Amino acid sequence: MPTPRVADPPLAEPLFRRLALLGIGLIGSSVARVAKLRGDLAGEIVANARTQASLDRVVELGIADRVELDPARAVEGADCVMLCAPVGAYAALAQAIAPHLVPGAILTDVGSTKQSVIRDVGPLVPAGVHFVPAHPIAGTEFSGPDSGFAELFQGRWCLLTPPPGTDPEAVEAIAELWRRCGSNVETMEPGHHDRVLAIVSHLPHLIAFTICGTADDLADESRQQVVKFAASGFRDFTRIAASDPTMWRDVFLNNREALLEMLARFTEDAQAMARAVRWGDTAYIEDKIARGRAIRRSLIEQKQA
Amino acid sequence: MPTPRVADPPLAEPLFRRLALLGIGLIGSSVARVAKLRGDLAGEIVANARTQASLDRVVELGIADRVELDPARAVEGADCVMLCAPVGAYAALAQAIAPHLVPGAILTDVGSTKQSVIRDVGPLVPAGVHFVPAHPIAGTEFSGPDSGFAELFQGRWCLLTPPPGTDPEAVEAIAELWRRCGSNVETMEPGHHDRVLAIVSHLPHLIAFTICGTADDLADESRQQVVKFAASGFRDFTRIAASDPTMWRDVFLNNREALLEMLARFTEDAQAMARAVRWGDTAYIEDKIARGRAIRRSLIEQKQA
Repeated sequence: MPTPRVADPPLAEPLFRRLALLGIGLIGSSVARVAKLRGDLAGEIVANARTQASLDRVVELGIADRVELDPARAVEGADCVMLCAPVGAYAALAQAIAPHLVPGAILTDVGSTKQSVIRDVGPLVPAGVHFVPAHPIAGTEFSGPDSGFAELFQGRWCLLTPPPGTDPEAVEAIAELWRRCGSNVETMEPGHHDRVLAIVSHLPHLIAFTICGTADDLADESRQQVVKFAASGFRDFTRIAASDPTMWRDVFLNNREALLEMLARFTEDAQAMARAVRWGDTAYIEDKIARGRAIRRSLIEQKQA
Repeated sequence: MPTPRVADPPLAEPLFRRLALLGIGLIGSSVARVAKLRGDLAGEIVANARTQASLDRVVELGIADRVELDPARAVEGADCVMLCAPVGAYAALAQAIAPHLVPGAILTDVGSTKQSVIRDVGPLVPAGVHFVPAHPIAGTEFSGPDSGFAELFQGRWCLLTPPPGTDPEAVEAIAELWRRCGSNVETMEPGHHDRVLAIVSHLPHLIAFTICGTADDLADESRQQVVKFAASGFRDFTRIAASDPTMWRDVFLNNREALLEMLARFTEDAQAMARAVRWGDTAYIEDKIARGRAIRRSLIEQKQA
């Protein structure tokens, strides 16, 4: 079955009568835009945010049908509730909304860590509400309601990590939502998800933030020249490092074990590379560079580049 | 004085009668293209490469007036000789060409490490020949004569690191060559150059090659998923990691001390970040992320982004 595109006309009845987006930053506002554009995601889009200023902006942008500053009011009568806040805010949000979720509703999310979400939110989900954790692997260096765009999820992966025993129809409804956003959907065990994401995304961001700090610690004269002469390598790092601070702080803290293990592996490998540089082990260095190129080629072949 | 652009008509007589490019990869072939396009860099462009196949390609591309497989023949009668090979090949090249350099000629280069170039090439430069090491800070992830383009140096920095006592007219001639390529030229002490480049370019590349290896070492199933689900963070890393292996091996080995020091600083910082993640030190993590964003903002303000 070909993946529907954002620009396609509505294929069917709206998937949900009312979709409540708790958090309306890059991801939440992009989902809202897709929903507005297609019309077949939800009959009504309700947006909730931490500040009235964000909601005022949502109204100006016209990307939701209704805005609510109180998350409990936002989820009233919603048959789909999507947590789009930083994962560190999930527990408090879930506590606030749990008594107000309607039976048969689906609670889902978009967080980058999945074991922590199941740990924090799972026990608070009322009986009769379906819980389908999800992670659209898409993003930019920008944040806030202005940063979203309807094409963000086009051709990207969305990973679902439903706990054992989750209603298959609820899982399918969330899968269909993401397919209508243009994504390719796959189901994955939450622990495996967290390990894979630790190496492909969380560790690269931790490294990027770190190296910017290392450069910033140089003596004043050098620091100015770092900025002045930044070659392409460092520029790519700082592009990553410009991403949303709260979101990334929460990701690091909520995927701690996998992240620390991948960092330990990376540090061992970096030390081995340092040793090869110190002792002039050209064969070792060339082998590492060749492997970098090989994994790059795989990426290009998989059209993820 | 406004920087001349590549597309401008010739401003003056050619700077040099004969420009010999020893190495015709990304940088060398880009200089050749600028010279061909502008006409005021050199009256004649001679290209030398390690393989006849590269030279055949140069002929097909029409970016040089003459090709020579023997570097000694390539430099005959040239009033400017530019080393454009990986820096590890410089000593052998300098040995091969030294007896054939004409008095008054300028010997220059484009290498990313400058202390090593002065150490390897300096002692071989015959009396009467001027030695002006240079480093255009520009590049892409591609290599070979096909990868070059005339706009590569446009708006980029070119750093000159002439040894004390170098003839100011020779330095000015090389500065003018790079200005005609569209670059902003600055002079710098070679040791300082190597430290600044270690943090802005060499360390980021070492890290990128390393993390690709770390990912490649994961168990087979995870590795395939790394490729499949590569989020934007990892993709940026692998873009860097696809750069020319020989060039980077030589850069690492020839800027060993500065690179190892920057790696040691970075590793300390990464360990401090790991400790903050392990113990949930949110203030520390937020501070590091904020500093990454600050340095990013500086980059944007300096229009280097």
